[in-house]
Amino acid sequence: MASTKQLRLGAFMRPVSIHTGAWRYPGAWRDANFNLPRLTQLIKTLERGCFDAFFMADHLALLNMPVEALKRSHTVTSFEPFTLLSALSQHTTHIGLVATASTTFDEPFHIARRFASLDHLSQGRAGWNIVTTSNPDAALNFGRDDHMEHDERYARAREFYDVVTGLWDSWADDAFIRDADSGLFFDTDRLHVLDHKGKHLSVRGPLHIARPVQGWPVIVQAGASEAGRQLAAETAEVVFAGAGTLANAQAFYADVKGRMRRLGRDPDHLKILPGAFVVVGDTVEEAHAIRTRLDSLVHYDSAIASLSIALGHDASLFDPDGPLPEIPPTNASQSSRERVIDLALREGLTVRQLAQRLGGYGGQAFVGTAQTIADEMQEWLETEGCDGFNVMFPWLPGGLDDFVDKVVPELQRRGIFRTAYEGRTLRENLGLPRPGNRFFESQPARE
Amino acid sequence: MASTKQLRLGAFMRPVSIHTGAWRYPGAWRDANFNLPRLTQLIKTLERGCFDAFFMADHLALLNMPVEALKRSHTVTSFEPFTLLSALSQHTTHIGLVATASTTFDEPFHIARRFASLDHLSQGRAGWNIVTTSNPDAALNFGRDDHMEHDERYARAREFYDVVTGLWDSWADDAFIRDADSGLFFDTDRLHVLDHKGKHLSVRGPLHIARPVQGWPVIVQAGASEAGRQLAAETAEVVFAGAGTLANAQAFYADVKGRMRRLGRDPDHLKILPGAFVVVGDTVEEAHAIRTRLDSLVHYDSAIASLSIALGHDASLFDPDGPLPEIPPTNASQSSRERVIDLALREGLTVRQLAQRLGGYGGQAFVGTAQTIADEMQEWLETEGCDGFNVMFPWLPGGLDDFVDKVVPELQRRGIFRTAYEGRTLRENLGLPRPGNRFFESQPARE
Repeated sequence: MASTKQLRLGAFMRPVSIHTGAWRYPGAWRDANFNLPRLTQLIKTLERGCFDAFFMADHLALLNMPVEALKRSHTVTSFEPFTLLSALSQHTTHIGLVATASTTFDEPFHIARRFASLDHLSQGRAGWNIVTTSNPDAALNFGRDDHMEHDERYARAREFYDVVTGLWDSWADDAFIRDADSGLFFDTDRLHVLDHKGKHLSVRGPLHIARPVQGWPVIVQAGASEAGRQLAAETAEVVFAGAGTLANAQAFYADVKGRMRRLGRDPDHLKILPGAFVVVGDTVEEAHAIRTRLDSLVHYDSAIASLSIALGHDASLFDPDGPLPEIPPTNASQSSRERVIDLALREGLTVRQLAQRLGGYGGQAFVGTAQTIADEMQEWLETEGCDGFNVMFPWLPGGLDDFVDKVVPELQRRGIFRTAYEGRTLRENLGLPRPGNRFFESQPARE
Repeated sequence: MASTKQLRLGAFMRPVSIHTGAWRYPGAWRDANFNLPRLTQLIKTLERGCFDAFFMADHLALLNMPVEALKRSHTVTSFEPFTLLSALSQHTTHIGLVATASTTFDEPFHIARRFASLDHLSQGRAGWNIVTTSNPDAALNFGRDDHMEHDERYARAREFYDVVTGLWDSWADDAFIRDADSGLFFDTDRLHVLDHKGKHLSVRGPLHIARPVQGWPVIVQAGASEAGRQLAAETAEVVFAGAGTLANAQAFYADVKGRMRRLGRDPDHLKILPGAFVVVGDTVEEAHAIRTRLDSLVHYDSAIASLSIALGHDASLFDPDGPLPEIPPTNASQSSRERVIDLALREGLTVRQLAQRLGGYGGQAFVGTAQTIADEMQEWLETEGCDGFNVMFPWLPGGLDDFVDKVVPELQRRGIFRTAYEGRTLRENLGLPRPGNRFFESQPARE
């Protein structure tokens, strides 16, 4: 099937490798997640590979895992997203900089201001990954014993989005005249005071920073629940999706784009990027060997906990070197359990190997040569499974170098990925329109 | 009087020139306050001049002034401090980066984390200017109709400081072992969970970022009230002081350092830096002409409001081009009124000139040649009026270039200012000890 539909690539970069064993891989930078010169090198490599965006997930607490697993995790010390991305903006010129920020544990005035500032500092490359923060440990760091319940969090998030985008529109794009002769710095008719009073938030405004270069930084979301999908269809321009199988991805894609059509939004104005763990080898066998080696670096104590959770059954008494035994039914998620049992059978994994697979990275993976990986990515792209991927690298720097040096040229050869950036801003590169200002007419209206 | 006491110099940089007329000065960059390449050039000039720190004041609302004054102010669009300083950290290697952050309108977990991140990104150059935010307009941007009262704000600030410094101490300096063979990323005995439950704040911790390079970023404060002075004596390492006369500065200096002695702190471990507006000319007359020119660029409508406030009397009916008339007594601040009347008499200013002086910049100023400015600075330094200054430049780039090219060499010639940075971190350059970790013993104890 011929297509000119273009692949969009984000790089999932907090932690810099999602795989629990990554920092132990031979040749890996052990501190890659917390070393600025190395992160600078990584983002320059991504820019050389024409990636759309550097995507920083975020957490507002140490990950809630048992200390036995925690002490083996390279995620425990990380930079804060706004400070890191502002620093990295000075070493790059085109790649987008997506920061995660919480609508539950922060203030819309701070969030609007910080993204506007990052967008100006990077000349239009900021994106906001809106999260509602479901980790109950985070609440304890912000003086709340009880975590806000799911629907309440989403209702606040929707209002928070309205306030933040309203604050971004505080100034018309042409408000600042800076006329030294008359002494007028701005045109008072081009300033809007939001004066928002809603159910969850009360924010006067205006913001004391000019409208972002992109009008609004690109809006990113990752929620997969009913409320999350609806919020995405209403507001998002990029969705970082969980994946599972291609069939699952196609169903998610159809659902979210269908919601957009019903809301009157152009479905092209939202890019769906499933997460993809990509392991490149010169042969398929070599790629699998790399993955097996990586998985073997996951400590069994932490791995077995992941397996127990997935099965809804204590797996610690199983023979680590035997096959997965029969398990009595429980009321745990059947789809999660079936997926794990299916995986063990299909690849002939022992209990240890299965546990290490899940404890390393259990999500969607493309493992093979540049050719087979490009085949799969192209199939997902052309069969409405996605608009691109949020790529996770198995270890650094080699796992990233292999992707940029081998997979990217193959995607380019097929005409489904850019060979140079099309525009200057993240929005331009993603093919998204610049939103008009809701309070002033001088800009083209949104959509 | 011979002395080896060294002058410390901060640069007050938000806005980049405090003077209201600065952006209109002939040759001035009109957008210097909001133009990253220009701010980059400015901070490099400051680093060439061996300045200790780039000091970013901050506001959490458009300044609360009438729109007639506001529309003439170059402060209305500014970068957010953490994002700007993170970006500037990548263009500099030695100068300190002091960000203002509010204890009233932010969360200690966010503040601790962001300063730790900036400190790591800058390799030990972060400072935290603790403010309680007295601007009532700020409250309206954070969902509060009633502004928190003064003593309550300071009580919260004190507890906030304890929590932030406690979070910085979450990890021992040597906690991260990153042993690929054993798979242990950190030593679980070197992690401390704060679990703070106090009157104003409840924060569990730990912070998910390593202890700052400086142990703690340098603690800066500016409060001049009784509560502010006490907080400074207990916690601050730099105080940005209002000045007035040398006699006033000496009284403040003696008071704060005396409080430190009574608390058992070494008075050398706090540097008092009054604000100083510095106008350099090749002759004293030229310097005064520059200032007069600058003042003349302040619009009368906004200037006269400043004069009315200072006098406690509506000055808008006075003859702008006549001398200041007699004013009936009011219950306004007598010291403020007397200072203004004295200034008008001493310099023979008309009502217009007096208003423009106050509307431009009414605080302590050194106006003269490199020689006379160095004389005054040295006198303040050697008579316990200060430990240095937080310098404000009349316009940019020329006002800064003149200071670095003319005044700095004169200070260096006198042996009271460095010719090269002594250390690598802000703390080292200021001659401040690195705080020990309150929960772990491996570092030298604080003070």
